[in-house]
Amino acid sequence: MKSLSDSTVAIVGLGLMGGSLALALRDRHVCRTLRGIDCDPSTCAEAEARGLVDAVGPDLALATWADVIVLATPVRTILELLPPLAAAAQPGAVIVDFGSTKREIVQAMNALPDSIQPVGGHPMCGKDTSGLAAADAGLFRGATFVITPFERTAPETLELVQAMATALEARPVLMDPEKHDRLVAATSHLPYAAACALMTALDSLGVDDDVRALASSGLRDTSRLASSNTAMMLDILLTNSDHIADAIEVYSQELLDLSNLVRRKDERALARVLQEAARTRREVFPHG
Amino acid sequence: MKSLSDSTVAIVGLGLMGGSLALALRDRHVCRTLRGIDCDPSTCAEAEARGLVDAVGPDLALATWADVIVLATPVRTILELLPPLAAAAQPGAVIVDFGSTKREIVQAMNALPDSIQPVGGHPMCGKDTSGLAAADAGLFRGATFVITPFERTAPETLELVQAMATALEARPVLMDPEKHDRLVAATSHLPYAAACALMTALDSLGVDDDVRALASSGLRDTSRLASSNTAMMLDILLTNSDHIADAIEVYSQELLDLSNLVRRKDERALARVLQEAARTRREVFPHG
Repeated sequence: MKSLSDSTVAIVGLGLMGGSLALALRDRHVCRTLRGIDCDPSTCAEAEARGLVDAVGPDLALATWADVIVLATPVRTILELLPPLAAAAQPGAVIVDFGSTKREIVQAMNALPDSIQPVGGHPMCGKDTSGLAAADAGLFRGATFVITPFERTAPETLELVQAMATALEARPVLMDPEKHDRLVAATSHLPYAAACALMTALDSLGVDDDVRALASSGLRDTSRLASSNTAMMLDILLTNSDHIADAIEVYSQELLDLSNLVRRKDERALARVLQEAARTRREVFPHG
Repeated sequence: MKSLSDSTVAIVGLGLMGGSLALALRDRHVCRTLRGIDCDPSTCAEAEARGLVDAVGPDLALATWADVIVLATPVRTILELLPPLAAAAQPGAVIVDFGSTKREIVQAMNALPDSIQPVGGHPMCGKDTSGLAAADAGLFRGATFVITPFERTAPETLELVQAMATALEARPVLMDPEKHDRLVAATSHLPYAAACALMTALDSLGVDDDVRALASSGLRDTSRLASSNTAMMLDILLTNSDHIADAIEVYSQELLDLSNLVRRKDERALARVLQEAARTRREVFPHG
């Protein structure tokens, strides 16, 4: 297998994630050649104009001579594109997906021809703005980059993706795809659901000038994820549905327990819950 | 009534809010003299050392010759301090509270001697760090400063507090105390409850290295409020309990509805909910 610096990398999907990857790989001269594939003509034109990649277009054939193909689209698009991409790819090509859920992708990867080397990746970073215009070469810096090897993943493939994560200044973390999906349901998809439901609840109250005047930085931060790309999030909710529904139900029950304590003004129990929550927050985010 | 620039202002409670107020009033020469009252000796020593106020100590008698007394403590401490402060205050003194809930304060203010001029204030700003060390003269800049006049509040008192809010570069907004409590339950106290329950839910999952590795900026923002000062938040939950419990119950039900859609993978309904949530977020925070 070629080293990353000798490789042609094709990125499918030049949105926030794929665009940022292209920028980061290009700026740091991480690979030999970069190709971009995107179905949106204006995105291709923008990538062309910014000199983001060496070649760009909507055609999957651009991935034919790639050594590494990165799928940076919403999850269900990844699932759709895997078979035609594998058919277009040269034998030995590495296919990495950047999907936010992994179980359905494992199945799809397992069904690919033996000549393809699949591996899962999930850079844990984002922004509330999406699209190539929001792309940023520093997006991955300091972020956890989960790598989920599949049964078929060769050690050299794993090393190659670890090298890519390191080149992006991300922190590679190996994790089983099943475990990944169960944990991100709680750490990532539940917070999104929490932010959305907060906006739904506020909407039912009626958003007027008074509500807007009272909406301060606390509400802004707590609801930020509701601004995420809805197409991307819809795919996540639909491909990790059981774990996410479980997590939301646990959360909803925790909230009911809390509202009961609030309603009956149980000072001692409330104090314990709030202090415990603050302690957990410090445990998860020691630096605030 | 004296103008603010001729007034002696006594601030009770030199934490984040009171300390920031002292800094802002001092730096902009908004009033004639500043006094600070705090029950914590080390806070008094720090205020003294930083030259925050002209006089500082634990004794409420420091408020005796003040023209304006600002109560910047947790709500239940405000309720406790109002009678002795009113007894110490000179006739005609304005008492402003910075409490985050207003209904119980209205009652306590109404019970004060007629010689006192009470008015409610609620600067909608904060930080996840508390205490005088976190105080910041720019804390109020651009923030909404809710002013809740009581029946007894004279027009000159209202003008004085509006002038103070404007001097702090905050945006004064007049609101009825009842309405204030109902709306902040949804815009401010519910997000806090949401952040706490998120940490409780995560805790039940077990926080380990994997969870920490997967905890990214989305979870960080959504849970930030769980780091708020728990003593302050406990008082808020206990003095706005009915509105907050109502808001949490509505929210919990919205979450259950969402989890049902996720579990049965109802793509159309889910897409609608996510888009609606994103739209509401833009409506409440047009600038992101």
